[in-house]
Amino acid sequence: MARTLCSALPEADPAERVTLEGWIHRRRQLATVVFVVLRDRSGPAQIVVTDPVVREQVAGLPEETVVRVIGKPIANAKAPGGVEVVEPEFRALSAPALPLPVELWRPALNSTLPTVLDHAALTWRHPARQAVWKIAAASMAGFRRHLDAAGFTEVTTPKIVDGSTESGANVFALDYFGDTAYLAQSPQLYKQMLTGVFERVYEVGPVFRAEPHDTTRHLSQYVSLDVEFGFIDSHRDVLAVLRDTLAAMVDGVRATAAGAVEGLGLALPTVPERIPVIHFAEALELAGAAADEPDLAPEHERLLGKWALERYGSDFLAVEGYPAVKRPFYTHPQPGDPRWTNSFDLLFRGLELVTGGQRLHEHADYLAALTARGDDPARYPAYLEAMSHGMPPHGGFAIGLERWVSRLLESDNIRWATLFPRDTRRSRP
Amino acid sequence: MARTLCSALPEADPAERVTLEGWIHRRRQLATVVFVVLRDRSGPAQIVVTDPVVREQVAGLPEETVVRVIGKPIANAKAPGGVEVVEPEFRALSAPALPLPVELWRPALNSTLPTVLDHAALTWRHPARQAVWKIAAASMAGFRRHLDAAGFTEVTTPKIVDGSTESGANVFALDYFGDTAYLAQSPQLYKQMLTGVFERVYEVGPVFRAEPHDTTRHLSQYVSLDVEFGFIDSHRDVLAVLRDTLAAMVDGVRATAAGAVEGLGLALPTVPERIPVIHFAEALELAGAAADEPDLAPEHERLLGKWALERYGSDFLAVEGYPAVKRPFYTHPQPGDPRWTNSFDLLFRGLELVTGGQRLHEHADYLAALTARGDDPARYPAYLEAMSHGMPPHGGFAIGLERWVSRLLESDNIRWATLFPRDTRRSRP
Repeated sequence: MARTLCSALPEADPAERVTLEGWIHRRRQLATVVFVVLRDRSGPAQIVVTDPVVREQVAGLPEETVVRVIGKPIANAKAPGGVEVVEPEFRALSAPALPLPVELWRPALNSTLPTVLDHAALTWRHPARQAVWKIAAASMAGFRRHLDAAGFTEVTTPKIVDGSTESGANVFALDYFGDTAYLAQSPQLYKQMLTGVFERVYEVGPVFRAEPHDTTRHLSQYVSLDVEFGFIDSHRDVLAVLRDTLAAMVDGVRATAAGAVEGLGLALPTVPERIPVIHFAEALELAGAAADEPDLAPEHERLLGKWALERYGSDFLAVEGYPAVKRPFYTHPQPGDPRWTNSFDLLFRGLELVTGGQRLHEHADYLAALTARGDDPARYPAYLEAMSHGMPPHGGFAIGLERWVSRLLESDNIRWATLFPRDTRRSRP
Repeated sequence: MARTLCSALPEADPAERVTLEGWIHRRRQLATVVFVVLRDRSGPAQIVVTDPVVREQVAGLPEETVVRVIGKPIANAKAPGGVEVVEPEFRALSAPALPLPVELWRPALNSTLPTVLDHAALTWRHPARQAVWKIAAASMAGFRRHLDAAGFTEVTTPKIVDGSTESGANVFALDYFGDTAYLAQSPQLYKQMLTGVFERVYEVGPVFRAEPHDTTRHLSQYVSLDVEFGFIDSHRDVLAVLRDTLAAMVDGVRATAAGAVEGLGLALPTVPERIPVIHFAEALELAGAAADEPDLAPEHERLLGKWALERYGSDFLAVEGYPAVKRPFYTHPQPGDPRWTNSFDLLFRGLELVTGGQRLHEHADYLAALTARGDDPARYPAYLEAMSHGMPPHGGFAIGLERWVSRLLESDNIRWATLFPRDTRRSRP
């Protein structure tokens, strides 16, 4: 008999027995009845066991045991979806599960972050944890859907790179057939080169940062949603595509993770038609920082986020014009004042979510920028070769997936939004 | 004025001037006219230059220079799309391009593979090269579209792993904050654990193999299209999902890379409703190999591919029941005869494209399998913990993206289908 998902029980023919498959999420033993909550990928279903023989059998099937249940669907307004299953037969599809290190059947997972992460393969089974990742997956799908429709080409770039990373700092080194190679800290140079091929490219992939310090918002590996495209006038064109991409990600979450959003009680942000933009110099002033500060501190970002919400009712604020000294060599200067740049950070609820901007596209400008920084153009042969054979004015951005989800959740640590996080102390599970 | 893509010229209002942007793909100088082929992401357009001043200007804009062209669209049956642009004004958006190491304007790229790879950022600009990657991108999109619709959840798993890789051989080691970690050779253990969470998962991501030998069909990094799902009866259920996924990939290519398929003159395969399946023992016999061979040699695969085409008219052939000695510890034995397994390889046009099968799902079976192989269960703590808390019968497969595209192209080397390949001798560009 074909399997019925728990969520499809309301459409089941009440005259026919149904076959459910899933995990025993919870058993509640009363005097003459056992209520079993079965969990499958679609959600829960209630099974009512009255037969003494079956009650005895269910007593030997602890929570998380995988079972097949064949029974009769019957309306019950109090059951999930308004239908429960009675007169069930149970068949175990796995050996009885061992006692769990955490109680997955509780409405909230009352464990500390280290415990949750140590047992990630189990704790992700909790419905509230599943909901978090459903939002991540829906965000990726929304990201791609928008860019596919906008004429972008998906690319996949090397994660093992030679010395020509865009910065020598904080990279993982590995032995590559007797040579030293590095894990890519971003697809930056590749996505730019590919803008010369496909004009518009994106990549969803892992990036690696050997950050030597543990914070609540950094990981050693995260998923970078990278976009780069040509034929722009300035970073404002990049910001416009970013705006539409974020809106599509929110739409994706709303469309395909509605249950997760509801279950977690999240308020999804509205992405304004035009994201408010302020210049870096103005941002320093608003945040009460000294005018010669080269960067925004987390406290400044929080204040600016609050300001954007009050002033514009916006969860998003773009800060443009970041000082050239704090931006990478490929950053395009602000026309007329090269102390500043055509780059931006996007703050989401007071935290940097996205970095983006316009890049240099002329070979001569790259040589000058690298030389001025004491970097050696010879480190970037293929990249500079591309720049010398006709590159369009271009720019792009990168969104950190886990940071995005973490901010949607308003969680206190990015690790809550990561399937199996990696940091200075954690390389397992 | 808004930009018009080359492919949209046929719909342009002939009464209005249009703005095109792209690369000067080719200039053909005749006595009193220069024909310029402009290339943008949508394809080519022909620009006709008669004005002596503009002809002089165009003489200083070598091939690959990025330009904006404003001109008048006019019907010409001989031009691409039936429309060409006359009375053009040119504006260079990049400095004049340097002479190219390869001639991108020639209909075919007549360079050797090493040259093409050394200058990959440029050679991918060639329309025939772009077409190859368009097929790869469309394949990934088709893969995801099918699995999203079938209730799968996209996951992203760690690429930096500790000692618990599924095999100690051929992994890249790296220094991870003072410890040794490894690059994941597959998401195998993670996707299985996540089957315990989401039932059905997929991942599109890089995998790393420190293969010490160079062949025409191996890479040190490739894109693995990984699928895993629960509640199966046997590997035959896995093969059924694989069949539908491959069909969706072909549909994806047909739908969104039709121009690329036509440009390359490819014959896309038809995925049969039921892929023919033969047992490994039968495959050996058909290939004329000794009955005690533990694996199929490339020559055997070629013969079997030919046989499947003749016997079933199928480009695909599944070989099931591979000997247990050649399969990893997590492989489910063939019921009734544990010399064989519930696993398969899928041959596509006589080359192994996919490996898949049913996995063990009982903790006790894992302990026995690991111990029998002299492996240490203590190396897999999180994985075995998941297995002891209720895992459904499950299985999955992995498709190598580059190998898939390479076979579609019937090319002689997988590197032709890889944006920036990595092998024992190549870690750049």
